[in-house]
Amino acid sequence: MKDLQEDLSLIKRGADELLIEADLVDRLKTGRPLRVKAGFDPTAPDLHLGHTVLINKLRHFQELGHHVMFLIGDFTGMIGDPTGRNVTRPPLSREQILDNAKTYREQVFKILDPDKTEICFNSAWLEPIGAAGMIKLAAMHTVARMLERDDFAKRYANNQPIAIHEFLYPLCQGYDSVVMRADVELGGTDQKFNLLVGRELQKHHGQPPQCILTVPLLEGLDGVNKMSKSYGNYIGIYEPPKEIFGKLMSISDDLMWRYYELLSFRSNGEIAGFKKEVAAGRNPRDVKVLLAQEIVQRFHSRQAAEDALADFEARFRQGAIPQDIENVTVACGAGGAGIAQVLKQAGLTDSTSEALRMIEQGGVRLDGEKVSDRALVLKPGATVVLQVGKRKFARVSLS
Amino acid sequence: MKDLQEDLSLIKRGADELLIEADLVDRLKTGRPLRVKAGFDPTAPDLHLGHTVLINKLRHFQELGHHVMFLIGDFTGMIGDPTGRNVTRPPLSREQILDNAKTYREQVFKILDPDKTEICFNSAWLEPIGAAGMIKLAAMHTVARMLERDDFAKRYANNQPIAIHEFLYPLCQGYDSVVMRADVELGGTDQKFNLLVGRELQKHHGQPPQCILTVPLLEGLDGVNKMSKSYGNYIGIYEPPKEIFGKLMSISDDLMWRYYELLSFRSNGEIAGFKKEVAAGRNPRDVKVLLAQEIVQRFHSRQAAEDALADFEARFRQGAIPQDIENVTVACGAGGAGIAQVLKQAGLTDSTSEALRMIEQGGVRLDGEKVSDRALVLKPGATVVLQVGKRKFARVSLS
Repeated sequence: MKDLQEDLSLIKRGADELLIEADLVDRLKTGRPLRVKAGFDPTAPDLHLGHTVLINKLRHFQELGHHVMFLIGDFTGMIGDPTGRNVTRPPLSREQILDNAKTYREQVFKILDPDKTEICFNSAWLEPIGAAGMIKLAAMHTVARMLERDDFAKRYANNQPIAIHEFLYPLCQGYDSVVMRADVELGGTDQKFNLLVGRELQKHHGQPPQCILTVPLLEGLDGVNKMSKSYGNYIGIYEPPKEIFGKLMSISDDLMWRYYELLSFRSNGEIAGFKKEVAAGRNPRDVKVLLAQEIVQRFHSRQAAEDALADFEARFRQGAIPQDIENVTVACGAGGAGIAQVLKQAGLTDSTSEALRMIEQGGVRLDGEKVSDRALVLKPGATVVLQVGKRKFARVSLS
Repeated sequence: MKDLQEDLSLIKRGADELLIEADLVDRLKTGRPLRVKAGFDPTAPDLHLGHTVLINKLRHFQELGHHVMFLIGDFTGMIGDPTGRNVTRPPLSREQILDNAKTYREQVFKILDPDKTEICFNSAWLEPIGAAGMIKLAAMHTVARMLERDDFAKRYANNQPIAIHEFLYPLCQGYDSVVMRADVELGGTDQKFNLLVGRELQKHHGQPPQCILTVPLLEGLDGVNKMSKSYGNYIGIYEPPKEIFGKLMSISDDLMWRYYELLSFRSNGEIAGFKKEVAAGRNPRDVKVLLAQEIVQRFHSRQAAEDALADFEARFRQGAIPQDIENVTVACGAGGAGIAQVLKQAGLTDSTSEALRMIEQGGVRLDGEKVSDRALVLKPGATVVLQVGKRKFARVSLS
């Protein structure tokens, strides 16, 4: 029973919502490996740390001995956006999907244990049901209940069109749970409605309804917006070790604890220990180094993590970046802002012309590295440490 | 151009609505045979004259040289009601549907020319589109527009469940029009929304949208309610000649003109001539005889029509039913009313006991035939001519 509480605490760590906890406890008590499902788009994956929160959670289940089913939603992927309105969702060929699946494997198996992971494609069961099967599936849910979904409700209220096939996708996803006999389905908080549809359909098919576990969106380097390529505040898992290391070292101490919770595989106990030490006076930067090393090692290697640390220390030794740097937010347009403009607005120079002169003199550093490009543009969402001369520092977030 | 106006006038005769008339005129002008579609349930047909209004309209098109496509909706018929709520719509096997199609053929080819009629089954194209095709189809319409359909709007407003597959059926019907390249689709007035969906989908597929022609529901023998088995106010096309003849002779003169419009194949000119003659004093009963003979001949034979007339006249000769009989409506429960009760309420006898005595004495006739069964029950919706003794008559409608 003590183990069970520990298991549950690992499962719930950093999660947003667990429905229904008592039901999950009952299933855990049986001791059998639970069937844990998570669905992924079949589009080309280029994962950043934000995506890995969910995969990490799958890994937690794996560590506890459960059966992880990594579902690639190729059935709808091959359809794409039938209205043609969403150009980011073109129909994918089977070859593209298999290619993407291969890339997924390479990326997620840096986190998951390949031997304990089943990769599934839902076309295997959604194609064979045919047109008649799709109609029968549609009969299992009502229009009114579908319109209760937050985004549908808003669009309907605002007279924004909802194409009818959008009602079918949650049903397809729910039917996946039926065929996969999922005990638990994981998803982002925005997926909650769809995960609940899975419960409904399982009941329809005489199965005990799956438990659902939602995980939050990870904040980006700025600690404010969700991590996203379009905000430029992300760490891609394929970035070079030094990049990953440097970016992680740039985050605030608060955000560091959040990242520990959602990205580290250190136990809850270890993390609590770190917190205690920092409270007692340990330099949080040392703890940040441990996090940065763990993440670099996960996506590269132990050696890469050690090299990145050595490089980081060498770069900053001469700069002697003080421990408490002022956080500054600089507003910029969608296209970003030029480095000189940013330096001026962050109060590091009095004017853009002074900023440009300092760059020419080699007196400006960005994340510890000398800036030589006067035309450098910083993107909105980026967070960087800027240094002018020996003593002026600021951690600048562009928004 | 004069012919075209005549054609149009025949097409519109008795119809409820024609959309879009100018478009239909353009297509008629081309001189090519138009592709005229009407869809039918694959359930066992047991047609009454009400059903034939639509088929008669198909015949009009046939007479004008157009191509009639008689569509049997077997695809959805094989699904039945997936919710299981509607027990009157069990899934049908392919064998049952083929059986029913055969019965359809036998019945409708009493009206349509088999050589000019194409019988289609929509499973031929709806099955092959598969689950993905159904999703693509669903993408072609929005939830909001579907909820504009009268019955959906009402049910949604009243919190009555609408299962999502109900949104797919109109789309299937519309897709039929695409595959069949329909120029015109016919349907009951209650089908208007679905026929319009066909127009939408044809536009989606780059086809000129079909014209739609709706026909009204035929009033039953009571002249008030729609003709329906459940009202008991119908004439089945398989009823014996004498039944059909007698029932038609029992209708009011007003209803006779309506039946002429919707059921007779006499030309508009001939019917206008009859009206003129009756206005000038011709006995409307003579004109009613012509209608009754036409209908009996259609579903049986010329000989049967003549025999039915002879029988009718022989039966009524002795009764000498006056030309103007009083119309009386008698209220009854859903189970109908006993003959004695009806006679009393119609004012033909002073009491039920008098009524029963008259029956025993052989003094009561129903549609000219002696009533011997004291327990005879008349159903709601029925209209009969009752006679007590030599001089008391009434045309009684039960409601």
